[in-house]
Amino acid sequence: LFLPQGNGFPLDSVQDPIKATTEGHWAFIATEGLLVPVNSGPGLGEGGVPGLEVPGPSLVATNAARLRLIAGPEKRLLEMGLRRAQGPDGGLTASTYSYLGGFDSSSNVLAGQLRGVPVAGTLAHSFVTSFSGSEVPPDPMLAPAAGEGPGVDLAAKAQVWLEHVCAHLGLGVQEPHPGERAAFVAYALAFPRAFQGLLDSYSVRRSGLPNFLAVALALGELGYRAVGVRLDSGDLLQQAQEIRKVFRAAAAQFQVPWLESVPIAVSNNIDEEALARLAQEGSEVNVIGIGTSVVTCPQQPSLGCVYKLVAVGGQPRMKLTEDPEKQTLPGSKAAFRLLGSDGSLLMDVLQLAEEPAPQAGQELRVWPPGAQEPCTVRPAQVEPLLRLCLQQGQLCEPLPSLAESRALVQLSLSQLSPQHRRLQSPAQYQVVLSERLQALVNSLHARASP
Amino acid sequence: LFLPQGNGFPLDSVQDPIKATTEGHWAFIATEGLLVPVNSGPGLGEGGVPGLEVPGPSLVATNAARLRLIAGPEKRLLEMGLRRAQGPDGGLTASTYSYLGGFDSSSNVLAGQLRGVPVAGTLAHSFVTSFSGSEVPPDPMLAPAAGEGPGVDLAAKAQVWLEHVCAHLGLGVQEPHPGERAAFVAYALAFPRAFQGLLDSYSVRRSGLPNFLAVALALGELGYRAVGVRLDSGDLLQQAQEIRKVFRAAAAQFQVPWLESVPIAVSNNIDEEALARLAQEGSEVNVIGIGTSVVTCPQQPSLGCVYKLVAVGGQPRMKLTEDPEKQTLPGSKAAFRLLGSDGSLLMDVLQLAEEPAPQAGQELRVWPPGAQEPCTVRPAQVEPLLRLCLQQGQLCEPLPSLAESRALVQLSLSQLSPQHRRLQSPAQYQVVLSERLQALVNSLHARASP
Repeated sequence: LFLPQGNGFPLDSVQDPIKATTEGHWAFIATEGLLVPVNSGPGLGEGGVPGLEVPGPSLVATNAARLRLIAGPEKRLLEMGLRRAQGPDGGLTASTYSYLGGFDSSSNVLAGQLRGVPVAGTLAHSFVTSFSGSEVPPDPMLAPAAGEGPGVDLAAKAQVWLEHVCAHLGLGVQEPHPGERAAFVAYALAFPRAFQGLLDSYSVRRSGLPNFLAVALALGELGYRAVGVRLDSGDLLQQAQEIRKVFRAAAAQFQVPWLESVPIAVSNNIDEEALARLAQEGSEVNVIGIGTSVVTCPQQPSLGCVYKLVAVGGQPRMKLTEDPEKQTLPGSKAAFRLLGSDGSLLMDVLQLAEEPAPQAGQELRVWPPGAQEPCTVRPAQVEPLLRLCLQQGQLCEPLPSLAESRALVQLSLSQLSPQHRRLQSPAQYQVVLSERLQALVNSLHARASP
Repeated sequence: LFLPQGNGFPLDSVQDPIKATTEGHWAFIATEGLLVPVNSGPGLGEGGVPGLEVPGPSLVATNAARLRLIAGPEKRLLEMGLRRAQGPDGGLTASTYSYLGGFDSSSNVLAGQLRGVPVAGTLAHSFVTSFSGSEVPPDPMLAPAAGEGPGVDLAAKAQVWLEHVCAHLGLGVQEPHPGERAAFVAYALAFPRAFQGLLDSYSVRRSGLPNFLAVALALGELGYRAVGVRLDSGDLLQQAQEIRKVFRAAAAQFQVPWLESVPIAVSNNIDEEALARLAQEGSEVNVIGIGTSVVTCPQQPSLGCVYKLVAVGGQPRMKLTEDPEKQTLPGSKAAFRLLGSDGSLLMDVLQLAEEPAPQAGQELRVWPPGAQEPCTVRPAQVEPLLRLCLQQGQLCEPLPSLAESRALVQLSLSQLSPQHRRLQSPAQYQVVLSERLQALVNSLHARASP
């Protein structure tokens, strides 16, 4: 659970203090993440900040954090799910919070412009297939990267390299699609320092790969290094291994060592399972583009954040309902994280706001949910979880930048123990109630059931 | 698949003709729903209309249409998923297109204001639990519905009725929660002609129901009729049956026949399975509020609409890729629906735009996907599926209203045969290629694989 960046909400209309967990910090559903005074007026209720600005962002950030845990720290994760979002604004939310959750970049340039998300992308199949090969480039001449010396006809040079490459790969020089090669040349002429190849518009092995190598080697002669290739179909892991082998062999054959390590990007409906395979030991995949799976969170496409009344005028309120799990915890509350002497996380405790905070080194009696008896805990450290973030309409401290919140996500997740962090059947982290809060729950229950 | 309402896109910047299926008409993924000329400039590509304005709306409308098929025509379906959407704009899309797909109303008042979606809602638990029962209404006097005669103290009258109701139900008069009753009285004073009760803030049987009856009967004496009750927890179907029994018995006991048929609304994470149960024969549920399940489409939270290049300057283009199912169908195309002499749907046929349209009564040779041989069909009727909707930046005909598109959804779905319309394992509706289109696919395949 992550709390969102303030984005344009008229905070100065809110006169009451608001407490929240720091954005980027994980929290549990049972812990109230955002406390909103009931008399803050319209716009802050279910249809306002808690209802609209918390669940979607928190869901996407949580999902992105899961994907980052699976991918490990080295793989570059590119969010490219704009077309699967609920319209443009849904896409902006998704791009912003998948970055916060641990992605490296987004293909959504508006998220770059408005939120500072690093943007990245590759070329489209429609760009590649729009060329037939009979096109004449307006200006095929490219100057060397160093800026000295005469320009060179890149299309002609690529054609020469194609013959070497096809001979090396055992392919006929007619096999690679001329339109695909024309597209690569056009892209390279426009972006010689950012040339990349989308390899699977026709056949990767017989067309995309030799065409990419021909253009990359022609560019290389002029001092430019290709930045990558992308695969969007077929067995991505297997093809990446084969392409890396071809890159290594060609690097040796043509004496261009940088070719060995040209990044391989993959995409194509990558979900958690596919990601785990692509991120396995020995994988030659470097960049993983994920769209649908990060944006729509197919494993759990909604997050059950709710806006509930817990107190009016200092008096606690509780909803009992017919389902025990839909009952609310009454009263304005504070939340603390209890840690052991080795810094390990013991549990979170919810208590009434007016109770004194738990003290490090002192024994505390608490009630696990549904327990018949309290248990005791002696924390070595105590961290308050809710910070005062808004008072009299003013922010109490500057909002962290998106990149700072993103770093906090990784830091705070690293503090979770492995059994709580694992993605399959994680151990349940305990969130307990203070004795006074438990007593209040009991008394409101008793009062409603005379 | 449904195509979205135009909403603010600068259509007059588009000089080329655009063809599309009529909004509200079902179509199949294989049928191109929207043809966009490649030189229509930026904004109309993957990140523009086809990418952002088609998939999300079509997904929600399709999902809503499924839910309407399950619910049957009689139940009122209320969309209430704003807080589960991808931010406010995602919520506006979801509310608009769940209405188009067959819902009756939305709790999203912005969708009402901007798109004309009928708005509806109920009261919130936080409203009910904000009352303790010790409040003094600023003005407890209510005039009769007919406007004649003196005002009556509604709170006092409800208290009198509470005693009758509790005696009738065999409850102690202290059992119903006084705060819940105070909330109902306050709501009734504000909306005497739209009084409804949310029954499950405490206990439905021992509190919500007697409090509702007390206030509804007090209002009834003044000539007002309560408009409904809502349940948000527990076994909704079972409780609805019990509540209807109580309504019938109370209607007889207190001689108020209208009480028998007070609508019962239910909500609480209702998915397709739960909806089927609530809509079964003999169910006493009248209104079903659905949020998460209609907005996030949990069974399939994304729709694979893609923007693909099919022709450049009249020349067909085709993406082959490493996955046969990711191949595109080349060329600018037309689509027709073929019907039998009894009006039954036979199949859809895709052909090249320049081919003559299929003729009713004439035999046609077509290729089912993946077939080794063509088959023949003799349609009794032929309907073109793509209409010219934009020419030289001008709409060719007025856009239908949202309500008109909503009606078309139900009409067009009613034309589908039961085996195609059923929700579990539907029969696959055939979309075939014309002989010339199949020949073009074969020739581009052969050209790419010499």
